[in-house]
Formats: sequence, structure tokens, C-alpha cells
Amino acid sequence: VSQPLAGVRVLDLGTRISAPLCAGLLGEQGAEVIKVERPDTGDFMRGLGPFKDGYSLWWAVEGRGRKSVTCDLRTAQGQRLLRELAGHADVVVENFRPGTMEQWGLGPADLPADLIYVRISAYGQDGPYAQRPGLDRVGIAFGGLLHLTGEPGRLPVRAGVNIADYLAGVFGAQAATAGLYRRAGSPDRPGQVIDASLYGAVLRVLEWTIAGHDQLGVVRERTGNRVSSAAPGDIYPTGGGGTIAISAAADANFRRLCAAMDRPDLPADPRFDTLAGRVAHREELDQIIRDWTGALSAAEVSRRCVAHAVPASVVFTAADLAADPHIAARGDLVEVADPVLGPVRQQAPYPRVAGEPPRAPAGAPRLGEHNEEIWCGLVGLSSVEYADARAAGVL
Amino acid sequence: VSQPLAGVRVLDLGTRISAPLCAGLLGEQGAEVIKVERPDTGDFMRGLGPFKDGYSLWWAVEGRGRKSVTCDLRTAQGQRLLRELAGHADVVVENFRPGTMEQWGLGPADLPADLIYVRISAYGQDGPYAQRPGLDRVGIAFGGLLHLTGEPGRLPVRAGVNIADYLAGVFGAQAATAGLYRRAGSPDRPGQVIDASLYGAVLRVLEWTIAGHDQLGVVRERTGNRVSSAAPGDIYPTGGGGTIAISAAADANFRRLCAAMDRPDLPADPRFDTLAGRVAHREELDQIIRDWTGALSAAEVSRRCVAHAVPASVVFTAADLAADPHIAARGDLVEVADPVLGPVRQQAPYPRVAGEPPRAPAGAPRLGEHNEEIWCGLVGLSSVEYADARAAGVL
Repeated sequence: VSQPLAGVRVLDLGTRISAPLCAGLLGEQGAEVIKVERPDTGDFMRGLGPFKDGYSLWWAVEGRGRKSVTCDLRTAQGQRLLRELAGHADVVVENFRPGTMEQWGLGPADLPADLIYVRISAYGQDGPYAQRPGLDRVGIAFGGLLHLTGEPGRLPVRAGVNIADYLAGVFGAQAATAGLYRRAGSPDRPGQVIDASLYGAVLRVLEWTIAGHDQLGVVRERTGNRVSSAAPGDIYPTGGGGTIAISAAADANFRRLCAAMDRPDLPADPRFDTLAGRVAHREELDQIIRDWTGALSAAEVSRRCVAHAVPASVVFTAADLAADPHIAARGDLVEVADPVLGPVRQQAPYPRVAGEPPRAPAGAPRLGEHNEEIWCGLVGLSSVEYADARAAGVL
Repeated sequence: VSQPLAGVRVLDLGTRISAPLCAGLLGEQGAEVIKVERPDTGDFMRGLGPFKDGYSLWWAVEGRGRKSVTCDLRTAQGQRLLRELAGHADVVVENFRPGTMEQWGLGPADLPADLIYVRISAYGQDGPYAQRPGLDRVGIAFGGLLHLTGEPGRLPVRAGVNIADYLAGVFGAQAATAGLYRRAGSPDRPGQVIDASLYGAVLRVLEWTIAGHDQLGVVRERTGNRVSSAAPGDIYPTGGGGTIAISAAADANFRRLCAAMDRPDLPADPRFDTLAGRVAHREELDQIIRDWTGALSAAEVSRRCVAHAVPASVVFTAADLAADPHIAARGDLVEVADPVLGPVRQQAPYPRVAGEPPRAPAGAPRLGEHNEEIWCGLVGLSSVEYADARAAGVL
């Protein structure tokens, strides 16, 4: 399995999701990731449910593939130790409130100049709202995605996962990797400080929303499962209780859907024979499709769509994912050896090298599990210094 | 402005969103991106609404920052020319149906071995469903996000943008950049073929969904705007018609929210004095909050939350984004000089180097705008060869 970032060392100073995901993604490509946690409680993510026997399953997933050391960054000694550790690192990822790292003497100016320093925050590092607190929900609300998600006439609905956190984490990992690339090619090894806001990640993926407002004066609204310029395309209930997503707006796909429905008359129907016509008559068209899907099981609708090469998929649950032969053949779910729970099935690293099933990362570490390895072996504390720092609660 | 990928050349063989976004993201960090389009129609994205005077605003955004050449990959001559062009490239990004590039003699084995070759597809390059057609909607359905998004008891709802496309594009860009990093550090310049499926990008961000099914037998369901283990946190209607997102589940944030509501009694209320209690009594708690938000304008609720450091944001529309002082101060919206429309305001490149406002990319190119520059200047066709290929419809 290819490990393109082998030899890179990353410090994960982050907490729940965006920064740890950013660091972990680098780790899944071969970087050594060292998570630095508070000695008392560790990462807040360790306390996020759902739990198995009191142990966080979310932590088991997004804490995986890294080492854990403790260090109290609120103490002068902890700050000094972190500066020493940073001297051995290539990348630092943090998501404290802007200015916090500087207060601790751990800002970019305090650490080696060749570091790639990724800063994730709700509102970014500068600007009038920089000090406002924020979480994923603030990111999707302020960044404009929340207003676009949900059914017309109802309250907006969040995407079912912390999508601003994940987006900012992946964008941040890409920018960090670009920084590593530049540094490797420059004799003076320039570092880089990256400012990744949660709202900005969401804003970046808003498609034409800003341009539409600027050029057409359109304030884009949510349209449920429909796209205003394309039909048919929706989520359709099936007879068995499940639902199926079908996209068949393009002429060729619409003809295939009609064949799957055994309705060869529809493509020639003057209401439906052009995309514009299908959009104009989408209610009638969707009713025809719903009548068809509602009389069949989800599996049968899917089978007929697949047989006619219509883009469609049953709306998968966790149970569907666990049972699906394509997911199994591709190795998309891996057994991670968690030190507390034992094997835990979870999503594999993504993306993969073509033809190579992804490898399971190491399990999420116990708090401080790698203290001696890192503080003594890497940073060079003597065993007495290490024991003293532990006794003082600094490590 | 830092351009860490300066000197990298990327071929964008993709169409609508995931692959073009992947290439474009590399371009926004300094890579030269050459889009290769069908001579007849160009990228399908050019025909996706909404339109200004018949010109796609989505294309104006996601076609930006690159050059356009034409080449008919369905012809032997076009395939030969593309192989020559690929000899000058570092990265190729494509999202044809798996096997298509091989049929054209343009698969990884046909192109230089040191290329970073990013392949985006609905179901990935192998496995039993690899040949099934798929679009964003299939990615979110099969990948498990769609089932988690929306209100309990109602049909699932898609995220308001093509999130599988964007996620796969960003993940793919990160993996491509890691491949560039590895290649730069290896004397034998190893290439890499990356398999990025739409569903896999979604599956990767499913949080604890798979682990919860594996360890607890829980089939995760959608919970609207609530998170099952945290309260209060929801989208609340305000008096003026807008809505506001508030996250105040942690003890400290809850105390701040109570101060913002001028309800100092609530943190000590035995129903609400622990997170578990707030979760158990969330209906009563949310009703109290709704009564408060419903009596005030969105701006006033926001002002009070900000004054008390409660994580909250008005649910922003495109109009709100255009008018917001933080967005303006940060330069999150840039004027892109479109060759057809003139200046078009759109989201800036993301993320940024700390302290540097993002720079506007070049406008989306006209179809074949850079044909002579690339085919003659870079690949080395004579003007006669070029004219012949144009006359034959190959370029």
C-alpha cells in the first residue's frame, strides 16, 4: 500500500473533528501523527457519544491512526516542551480560538519557520468575527449551506453529519500537503500558515449561489430533493418502506428510465420529450415515477434501474452498507484494532491507490499511550525529567 | 500570495464538478490547469443552469482558473495528441466511466509512468458495481449520507449542494498532492493512480455510523437538526422570519445562552443542570428557547448570543453573504473577470495563507481559447498540422 507521506511528522493539537480529521488524513497516507492532549481529560472527542461501555465510538473512528502524548499547554513548562516537540515536526494542526496559540507562546512566530501550520477555526484567523465561538452548525449556517438544505416551506435542515468540520479538515489537509510539496522543492524550506475557516469551506462548495445572486439577483432557496433545472430527479418511496434516489434528467437517462418502467410511450410524450418540458411538468412526471416505485420493493426498483443503466441507488442505511457486496468486495469497511474495544468495523481510509484495498489504520490510542516514546525517545527528556513533569501534571 | 503548486501542470479531462473541482483546486494553488474538452460541445458543465444570457453561471465558477483546449478523445488522432500532451503533464484528472480511458488507449499504462492519475467515478474503479452509472445523488444515497439527512418521519433530504462531487474532488486533490510530494522526493519519480469514488467520499465522513452499527447494532437514523447526545442545539425560528442556528450543549455554552436569554434560573434548574438532563428534557428546553427567539428579530438574537459568546449564527442566504462585513473584510467573495460576462462575483479560493486575502482566479475560458498556445506552443504541432486537425474536427 502506497504511503506517499511516509517520513512526515504531524502534531495534532486539535479537538473534535476538523483538525483531528485533517491530521488523521495525512496519517492515513503515511505520516506519523502525534496527538497532543490535555493530561486531565484528553481530547473532548473521547467524551462524545455514542458509547460502547462508556467508550466513545466517534473517538474510536476519528482518533485512529495516531499516537497520543499528554501535555498541558496552559503551563509554561508544557509550552516549552511543545516548542521542543515542534522542532521535530513538519506539520502542526490546531483549532483553538484565534490568538490562543500566541497567548501560549506557541504561535507561528514562536515555532520553527519551516513548519506547515494549519489553523482551523469557525470564522478564520482575522476579520471582525474572528473571536466569536463556533462549531460545525455555525459553519453551515454562516457559510450558506444550511439555508439551501431541506424542503421548501419548512425549516432548513443540517446535513446529517458535521460537514463543515469534515470539509475544512480535508481542504486543510490538501493545503498542508501542497505546503509540504513546496517546502520540499525549495532550498530555503519555506513554511506556511494556513487559515481554514469552517464557514469558508462551506462557502467554497456553494456552486453557483453567489454568482446567481450577483448576476441575476437570485437569492437561492432550498428545493428539497429536486434541482430546479433538472427533471426527473428525486427521492422516491418504494413499496417496501425504503426509498430510492433516481437521477434521470438528461435525455438518454430519461429514455433508459422509461424503458426500466416499461413505459416506451413517455419519451415521445410532448410534455416530457425535452428537458425543459420535463421540468415544466415535473409534478405529473414524478407522480408517474412514484406510482411505479411505490408498487415495487426498493431492491426490485434498483434491479430494473441497474438493468437499464439508469443512475439510481437505494438510500442506504448502516445495515445496508454492512451487507452490500460491492462495499465488501472493495474493502470499504475495515476492522480497526481498538486498544479498548478490540476489532471495530469502520470506514476505510479514502481515497485508495487503484487496485489496492485500503489498509486498516491502527486503533485510537489510549490517553498518553506514547508519552515515553515521544517525550523521552524523540524529544530527549531523561527519565527523571519525564517523571517530574508527569508528577507535576504537565505531561 | 503563495502558490505552492507553481510549476505543476494538470490536465482536467473531467466533466461537471468532481474532477474539474479537483483540478481547479490544484490550480488555485498555483498549478497550470489545462482543460481538455470535446470540440463540438465542450464540457457538459457549460450547459448547466442557471444561466445569464444563456451562459452558465455554474461554469463561470467551476470552470475558472484554467485553460481550455479541444480534443476529440473518441478519435485515434485525438488519442495520439492527448498522449503527447500528457507527456508534458504532472497530473491527470478524469471522471469517465471506468474502462473508458483504457478503451481509448489513454489508461495509466498508456501514459507516462510518472503521472499522478486521479480517477473519480460513482462506484470506484473495481468491484461488482463499477460499471453502474452514477451522479452525486447516487453517491450520497449509496454512501449513506442521504439516509441521515432530514427530519425524522419524513423522506430523507439531500444536502443543498452536490456534496459527494465536492468531497470526492477535494479528497482527490489532497491525494494527488500527496502523490506529487512523494514523486518529488523519489529519484525514480513514481507515479500514482488514485481511485476516488463518489460514495466513498461520503462514507468516509459518516462519523460513528459504521462503528455504531458494528458495536451497538444501531442503524443510525436522521434526527433533523438535533444531535441525539447533545442539547440544546437546533435551528430556531425568529420573529422576523429568519432562522438562527444555536449550539449550546456543553455546560459553559449553556450557561452563556441562559445569560443571553436573561434566564439565570435555568442552569440551576434540575431538569437542565447536566447535559444528560438537557437531552432528556430537550423538548421543554427548546420550547423555552423558541419562545425567546420567536419574540426577537434574527439580528437581535444574534447580537445577544454574540455578546454572551454563545456559538450561534443566523442562517445566511446569498443576500446575507453579499452584505456581511466579516465576509467583506476577509475578501471571501472575489470578482472574477469572466471573458463573456465581465466581472462575476463568486466564492474565493479556499483555504488561504494566513493574513493574505485570496486572489481572484482567471475567468472560465472560452471553448478552445488556448488551443494554439498548448497544441502548437507546448506540444509542438506545426501551424499546418494544427490547422489540419482543426479542419478534421479532432481539435
